[in-house]
Amino acid sequence: MSTEIATDTAPQATKAVSSHPLSPLSASEITTAASIIRASWPARTDLHFKVVTLQEPPKAEVLRYLEAEHAGESRPQLARKAFLNYYIRNTNKFHEAVVDLTSTRVEHNVLLGPFVHANGDGDEIVAIEKIVLADESVQAEIAKLQLPEGTVVISDPWIYGSDGVNDEDRLYQCFLYLRDPNNAAEADSNHYAMPIPISPVLSTETMKVIRIDIMPTGVDNTIKPVEKYKLQPPNEYIPEAQTLRTDLKPLNVVQPEGASFKVQQEGTSSVLSWQKWNFRVGFNQREGMVLYDVRYDNRPLFYRLSLSDMNIPYADPRAFDLGDAGAGIMANNLKLGCDCLGSIYYLSSVLSDDKGGVIDMPNVICIHEQDAGIGWKHTNYRTGRAAVVRSRELVLQSIITVSNYEYILAFIFNQAGEVTYEIRATGILSTQPIDEGVEVPFGTVVHPGVLAVHHQHIFSLRVDPMIDGYDNRLVYDEAFPMPRSDFNPHGTGYYVQETIIEKSGGYDTAYENNRTFKIQNPNVRNPINGKPVAYKIQAPAFQKILSDKDSFNYKRAEFSDHNVYVVKHRDGELYAGGTYTNQSRGGTGVRSWAERNENVKDTDLVLYVQAGINHVPRIEDFPVMPCEILKIHMKPVNFFDKNPALDVPPSEQGFNKSNLLSEQHQQPSVEATIGQDGSCCGPKL
Amino acid sequence: MSTEIATDTAPQATKAVSSHPLSPLSASEITTAASIIRASWPARTDLHFKVVTLQEPPKAEVLRYLEAEHAGESRPQLARKAFLNYYIRNTNKFHEAVVDLTSTRVEHNVLLGPFVHANGDGDEIVAIEKIVLADESVQAEIAKLQLPEGTVVISDPWIYGSDGVNDEDRLYQCFLYLRDPNNAAEADSNHYAMPIPISPVLSTETMKVIRIDIMPTGVDNTIKPVEKYKLQPPNEYIPEAQTLRTDLKPLNVVQPEGASFKVQQEGTSSVLSWQKWNFRVGFNQREGMVLYDVRYDNRPLFYRLSLSDMNIPYADPRAFDLGDAGAGIMANNLKLGCDCLGSIYYLSSVLSDDKGGVIDMPNVICIHEQDAGIGWKHTNYRTGRAAVVRSRELVLQSIITVSNYEYILAFIFNQAGEVTYEIRATGILSTQPIDEGVEVPFGTVVHPGVLAVHHQHIFSLRVDPMIDGYDNRLVYDEAFPMPRSDFNPHGTGYYVQETIIEKSGGYDTAYENNRTFKIQNPNVRNPINGKPVAYKIQAPAFQKILSDKDSFNYKRAEFSDHNVYVVKHRDGELYAGGTYTNQSRGGTGVRSWAERNENVKDTDLVLYVQAGINHVPRIEDFPVMPCEILKIHMKPVNFFDKNPALDVPPSEQGFNKSNLLSEQHQQPSVEATIGQDGSCCGPKL
Repeated sequence: MSTEIATDTAPQATKAVSSHPLSPLSASEITTAASIIRASWPARTDLHFKVVTLQEPPKAEVLRYLEAEHAGESRPQLARKAFLNYYIRNTNKFHEAVVDLTSTRVEHNVLLGPFVHANGDGDEIVAIEKIVLADESVQAEIAKLQLPEGTVVISDPWIYGSDGVNDEDRLYQCFLYLRDPNNAAEADSNHYAMPIPISPVLSTETMKVIRIDIMPTGVDNTIKPVEKYKLQPPNEYIPEAQTLRTDLKPLNVVQPEGASFKVQQEGTSSVLSWQKWNFRVGFNQREGMVLYDVRYDNRPLFYRLSLSDMNIPYADPRAFDLGDAGAGIMANNLKLGCDCLGSIYYLSSVLSDDKGGVIDMPNVICIHEQDAGIGWKHTNYRTGRAAVVRSRELVLQSIITVSNYEYILAFIFNQAGEVTYEIRATGILSTQPIDEGVEVPFGTVVHPGVLAVHHQHIFSLRVDPMIDGYDNRLVYDEAFPMPRSDFNPHGTGYYVQETIIEKSGGYDTAYENNRTFKIQNPNVRNPINGKPVAYKIQAPAFQKILSDKDSFNYKRAEFSDHNVYVVKHRDGELYAGGTYTNQSRGGTGVRSWAERNENVKDTDLVLYVQAGINHVPRIEDFPVMPCEILKIHMKPVNFFDKNPALDVPPSEQGFNKSNLLSEQHQQPSVEATIGQDGSCCGPKL
Repeated sequence: MSTEIATDTAPQATKAVSSHPLSPLSASEITTAASIIRASWPARTDLHFKVVTLQEPPKAEVLRYLEAEHAGESRPQLARKAFLNYYIRNTNKFHEAVVDLTSTRVEHNVLLGPFVHANGDGDEIVAIEKIVLADESVQAEIAKLQLPEGTVVISDPWIYGSDGVNDEDRLYQCFLYLRDPNNAAEADSNHYAMPIPISPVLSTETMKVIRIDIMPTGVDNTIKPVEKYKLQPPNEYIPEAQTLRTDLKPLNVVQPEGASFKVQQEGTSSVLSWQKWNFRVGFNQREGMVLYDVRYDNRPLFYRLSLSDMNIPYADPRAFDLGDAGAGIMANNLKLGCDCLGSIYYLSSVLSDDKGGVIDMPNVICIHEQDAGIGWKHTNYRTGRAAVVRSRELVLQSIITVSNYEYILAFIFNQAGEVTYEIRATGILSTQPIDEGVEVPFGTVVHPGVLAVHHQHIFSLRVDPMIDGYDNRLVYDEAFPMPRSDFNPHGTGYYVQETIIEKSGGYDTAYENNRTFKIQNPNVRNPINGKPVAYKIQAPAFQKILSDKDSFNYKRAEFSDHNVYVVKHRDGELYAGGTYTNQSRGGTGVRSWAERNENVKDTDLVLYVQAGINHVPRIEDFPVMPCEILKIHMKPVNFFDKNPALDVPPSEQGFNKSNLLSEQHQQPSVEATIGQDGSCCGPKL
């Protein structure tokens, strides 16, 4: 593992010009862009910046650049541009701007709307928490609970989720909870175990509570007056509240010669090389980790890969969309020895704050290798000789915290030419109060007096392919039984049939036909069997969005109704739910783009692959849920001329250094098992 | 990790009586059982033994024994019995017998048939290979190929697969291949890259070739005369035939304090304890690894878990059933540092041979722990404190070689109360010759002149549950949208509805409803939310069997047409395709048992869970395919009162000892990367 620091030490203006066109904005580019926009307004106009991020150059220009880069030729100069969103502070005047950082010109600067709203941001959320709890009408409702002296009330602001009412105002709905009154000093007490039925709604224009909803706590929507709170036992997740297991022995991943990957840092982006893979890593506020220009053995595969969107429709009217906050801004600062095992390399980033300044985002991506068991094996039964190869994987992992919930998101590469996007859902269920003895079909009681409502998580992975070239097509294979005939006398024959997708649209899997989507390049043929080179998509089955077609949940989550969407590429179309998802009314995402009914055959197509969970909570999912894992695989089909992992060195004891446990092996005393010298994320004992 | 050897050193007869009723037969029990059967026949009758295995006692008796065992009370004496299958050698007289080893009495000894045939066995297969290649008519066909001097022909005998013709004779169909004539001394040359169109059929009664099929090599079933063979390049998988990668650095799993599990060997079975899990491991000829009496924190979960069957219908008329050979007898001898990383404990076993003797089966199961990434995590965004726990898993792995193909089969336990059955399909595709330039819709050309035919792999996991008690029910949950109403004004609400399965039968998943099967015990309620304790089943979507309902493939693979089968328990019903699958005509497996239409609600039910792959070969699957992985999960639902992994110690650097890769970290020279001192399964350089 070596890191080559870019040698470019030229001053800022020149530096901006010489950056790679796909490099995220640097700290100075962020502040420069914000300054340029600020200068476009009268002095002392208070701007509330929401996003200052890279405006990627048109794909056609970048492709020319990449071709020159890979050919070792001199690269074209592409203008560095910033994309900005901002409000005039404490108004609903929401703007979108593009600034050319090279020329320092404002290219575009417009007021958006109506019904267009920005994402939330951290400063705003912290401010709202305080405003809501300080509000007199809220305090009056809380007083009715007759809580013990010193009880701490916690407020979780949620973006509102459009309900078609009052949509011109950007609102927050706050959910309130108690910190365990018997442990009020513990800031990490799990307040989600003590929800209260008071839910203030706040307008961001006035930053004032405009309404207080009292939540129904029975089987229907009957609302009872707020009354004396019945204190239930706490349900803590922090380790010092547990009697920890003492019989788990350490398992260390040791890489005595370092890792097998190489990171080349070029300004704000990094180029990774590992086992014939080569790609560029970016990071932004909206998507978090983005991979560009993914190649295997110098053959182009993907121009761009990212989590495009995620929607969480609840069985009750709330819904959350990833665009309402941003995967990048919610990324955890990952810690050595906590989030990965082995030899770890961290990537850091910078994002913008609400004043047009810079937020340091340290360790937002961790990179490591992992062993994934046997990669391939065959034993010749005649000679007894086994040929066995282990599967080594390269993992790029980011973890995002969405208030109560966590998502562990990873791109995983292997030696067989496969890319996997792995999603682990964990964290704490969103909860609300429920009366004792009540059962409802739209949620599960996970603690006395606590209901966790059913909800869906629907993810959309954006795949911008370039399988051996820029013009690709999407096809699907299906398997059908052959009719009985002289050729199929026993009724056992079956055949596979390919269907080409001609037009943009949403398409579905059909498990009964083994329908398998493949991204193909018909102009490049396999040298052995003449089939077009392709990558297939394998994603787990899931239930599509349950909200009805007239609902705003359905209209906003434009990707949630089909297994895949395919559209013709257009610059600027990156997010399956649209650029502005907060309280959006739909019409700006991939379903709408697909309705253009464009040709997607043998052209620059973009694929959105959906995966999801209908999360019917189990009590085992509380107070923190064990990871639920989804994997979307992309695997070569007739792309290589044989198993590409054939040249991986065989799995051998001299390399692997495993340890034989024998009957002589003594069990050490349990006292020695748990290391207590770590500190990064352990108990505060 | 310690091993406690059973202290029982009493002489054999007593030992048999004192064995645990679920312990596999010992070597002396195998030879005793065979001797008793041999003595029941006139002297010098030559018996060809097919199976000598444990006849498990009736479940009701075992349950009484287990209750006494767990209560620490004196255990009932259960008779040790052996189940045997044998032929009068060189006849089709196939017998089934049960011997009481305690009393040495023959309880049952009958001639089976018609249309009942035994599995193949190793000695028989080796004999057939030789007979076929020595056969003059076969040699005459081979001569027509005009092969280079010294070319070695290889024969792979396959059990025949019923086609309704000549079913009273037990047949083998042999597929012939060449070893690369330019490398004829290499016994591990991949002959599957050089199939020839000559396919002799042999009768096991006469042990003579009765027919030679010439295989069609074009688009249809036209058969051309055998003609001069066109030699194509080889396609080897052995490492010395590759230019191996040199940039993969070692990754070692080090467990400085040993493993966290404990194995207690009791005669021929072993009891495993790990992280609140406790179960007994058995091994037999038919199923290989079997788990009994699986408990978590002393609560009963599963009486018995095993791979019950597997069927591989090909798009051409061949089909293979696991019962035709046996998962146990095909188990690999696993090698340290090749098949697992970390601290490994191996279990060995004994099985019977064709003469009623004993075959040592060393290292057929390997046991180790593995890290499975983050188990659960939550970050309090207010304090920044992360609580994170890694997921440790216990793996029991067996690998079977089915001629050309391999299956890596594992039971995986975790700390969140979950059991996973993992299947990895690898090994070499079955191949046949194809004319140059020909494309067919039922197979893929994977090498010049070589066709790999499409095929399905359909697995059946037998789950005999005892979720907190012996009387369980199978239910399924489904999610449906709520109609619009005052309660659902925005059209977003949905509810979950449970359906109880009353009668034995085959049932299917419905992804569009998120249908989820759960094994429930309605008599035990969750102390917090009052829901019945349950375990849910999560299995990947797959295409059911494609062979038509009149085909023998369909009739034999009685589990292959539904996601789950549920039946009322009956002693002796263990294999979803029936006890005797070879050339069977159906009617003896789980579909037939289900047709009894018995009550399965709140009784002793047994579940068969299916998973599968429709394997449309890619050229990347040749010469050895990268593992295709299937996982069947069983997860608690309202069985515990919170996340059962809450008490796992937090993930800390002091325990995990990860290594930070920094910019200062130097990349070592590539020459040092590949250890060459291993020998177990490496290249013979």
